[in-house]
Amino acid sequence: MTINILFAAQADRWAQYEAPLTVALNETGLAYDLRTEFAPGDVDYIVYAPNSEVQDFTPYTRLKAVMNLWAGVEGVVKNQTLTVPLTRMIDENGLTQGMVEWVTGHALRHHLEMDRHIVNPDHVWDHTPPPLSKDRPVTILGFGALGQACAAALLSLGFPVTGWSRSAHPMDGVTTHAGAEGLTQALTDAQIVVLLLPDTPATENTLNAQSLAQLPRGAVIINPGRGPLIDDAALLAALDSGQIGHATLDVFRIEPLPQDDPYWTHPKVTVTPHIASETRPDSASRVIAQNIRRNEAGEGLQHLVDRSAGY
Amino acid sequence: MTINILFAAQADRWAQYEAPLTVALNETGLAYDLRTEFAPGDVDYIVYAPNSEVQDFTPYTRLKAVMNLWAGVEGVVKNQTLTVPLTRMIDENGLTQGMVEWVTGHALRHHLEMDRHIVNPDHVWDHTPPPLSKDRPVTILGFGALGQACAAALLSLGFPVTGWSRSAHPMDGVTTHAGAEGLTQALTDAQIVVLLLPDTPATENTLNAQSLAQLPRGAVIINPGRGPLIDDAALLAALDSGQIGHATLDVFRIEPLPQDDPYWTHPKVTVTPHIASETRPDSASRVIAQNIRRNEAGEGLQHLVDRSAGY
Ligand SMILES: NC(=O)c1ccc[n+]([C@@H]2O[C@H](COP(=O)([O-])OP(=O)(O)OC[C@H]3O[C@@H](n4cnc5c(N)ncnc54)[C@H](OP(=O)(O)O)[C@@H]3O)[C@@H](O)[C@H]2O)c1
Ligand SMILES: NC(=O)c1ccc[n+]([C@@H]2O[C@H](COP(=O)([O-])OP(=O)(O)OC[C@H]3O[C@@H](n4cnc5c(N)ncnc54)[C@H](OP(=O)(O)O)[C@@H]3O)[C@@H](O)[C@H]2O)c1
Repeated sequence: MTINILFAAQADRWAQYEAPLTVALNETGLAYDLRTEFAPGDVDYIVYAPNSEVQDFTPYTRLKAVMNLWAGVEGVVKNQTLTVPLTRMIDENGLTQGMVEWVTGHALRHHLEMDRHIVNPDHVWDHTPPPLSKDRPVTILGFGALGQACAAALLSLGFPVTGWSRSAHPMDGVTTHAGAEGLTQALTDAQIVVLLLPDTPATENTLNAQSLAQLPRGAVIINPGRGPLIDDAALLAALDSGQIGHATLDVFRIEPLPQDDPYWTHPKVTVTPHIASETRPDSASRVIAQNIRRNEAGEGLQHLVDRSAGY
Repeated sequence: MTINILFAAQADRWAQYEAPLTVALNETGLAYDLRTEFAPGDVDYIVYAPNSEVQDFTPYTRLKAVMNLWAGVEGVVKNQTLTVPLTRMIDENGLTQGMVEWVTGHALRHHLEMDRHIVNPDHVWDHTPPPLSKDRPVTILGFGALGQACAAALLSLGFPVTGWSRSAHPMDGVTTHAGAEGLTQALTDAQIVVLLLPDTPATENTLNAQSLAQLPRGAVIINPGRGPLIDDAALLAALDSGQIGHATLDVFRIEPLPQDDPYWTHPKVTVTPHIASETRPDSASRVIAQNIRRNEAGEGLQHLVDRSAGY
């Protein structure tokens, strides 16, 4: 029987995804129909962006799974009308690779103190070399698909890396800590902190006045995770006091970041417009198509979201 | 018999090197005397910086080798009074590691177009992600100790890498070209060009009007090699025409870069003050001490300079 796949995202996404999804689904050999509109009762799978028009899943009586196009699922995970399995995006060759590049790049930027050369109106020739990476400990809060991939790249560049997660994830060459009690240990020596936690009730304000104070003075924050992970007022105060040396923020409580937000003008803040990593249509379409193929073959879905944990 | 080792560099260097050189020489088990002054006829080895007071080697009648503290030897290689072997600095754990960090960092900075977020006075929220590294070819001109180490790091981050040298140096996963005829091939696809050539008569103005024109429009130049590798007037013209998108320059014909040099104020140029990589006293001292030990044991000196080639 034909598998009906509804693409439910904003219109510009369809233009990006129609061709690669078609290619990837053809590769599976499944008989399918891919469209942006179906009678709800006919749909087997929804390829989904949380800002799509589909917010009530109740009429989708035949639905087998919702496959989120993004890594973060905070926009759909609390939807009570969704009762079938929800998957999120894990795509090594696209989303993960992009995050590795962004995190490694900004970690090196701060490590090498590039900004004072990029913006140097007084033409200061200050020949003070930075330390080597081996003397610049990096801590990654959120040690999942993205955090572990970034750790591997930073490790191979010589940085001492510490990872923190809810459950323990040992990794060769990395110091790992888990759970609320592990956070202090993860922060004590960190000169660069990378946030790759999901947005859940438990992770909100992970960086707050108390945890920011546990970092060594002058530590740098890099947030490609989610805006609510940081207590913004506490971060601004820590930047002003010098406790935090710089913050490079890709994600915010409100996006696009409102023009009057103090982050835009703070001299120690770099705003990037939620570009740390994008789902890449070609490779992401293959991930989705293969997941549908697996499910149809009874092999089970990959990248399932734990609805109770919220990620 | 005691081995007399003269440390010939400017005074501030002695403060940096006395302790680590002593530690490293003690580790060799050799009987030695390390000082900043000796009667010339008593000296066995000179640990050397080309800007030291020692410019005439004729009186050093017992001299076995001169060991340059830096990787570049253009300041000593033409000295006709030097007739004993000359070594240069190759130190994986210090000098090379620092160069890998600097080159990788600036390659990622340009790849990710970080500057438009670091300096963004109009608070533009432009959600256009960069391509992935696999779509950003990098060419390294000068594929020796430093060039190959940078290639390995860039390769592991996903960049397609091309290396160019005088003789052929095949390397897994890297496209390599050699000799004058290979230069055009090395430049054709390069979106980022890294200069890690030595300063010799043959490498002067490697990037000139003709070779700059062989690059794809908008290519970025990163020069941690030496100033004379670039024809400055040609680079400025190529930046103005848009042929070259940006230049990040660490080295210059005159250093410190004079205040009236157009590079300081050009909007598409980043000046860094010859900090791409420093010789690091701890690890470099071990390299020097082990080289003296090797020579005393009849194992031959490492890192010998080819005086006729000039590097
Ligand atoms: N800015 C961007 O462009 C962009 C792009 C993609 C993703 N993201 C963000 O990155 C996040 C991470 O993605 P991912 O694929 O790496 O997710 P993931 O594989 O689910 O990893 C999440 C990590 O966070 C840990 N964690 C969750 N709750 C925690 C808690 N209360 N205390 C301590 N650790 C906790 C998890 O611990 P366990 O391992 O024990 O479960 C896991 O290690 C996404 O949720 C998304 O918000 C941003
Ligand atoms: N900015 C800084 O802080 C800093 C720090 C350290 C070093 N440096 C610079 O980096 C340079 C490279 O250091 P390294 O240790 O990598 O030197 P290296 O091992 O001698 O490598 C030099 C490379 O350049 C190639 N080469 C030389 N002449 C050439 C020519 N005419 N045409 C094509 N290729 C040519 C060599 O080819 P072959 O392999 O065939 O010989 C070799 O691959 C140093 O000379 C120094 O100027 C700068």
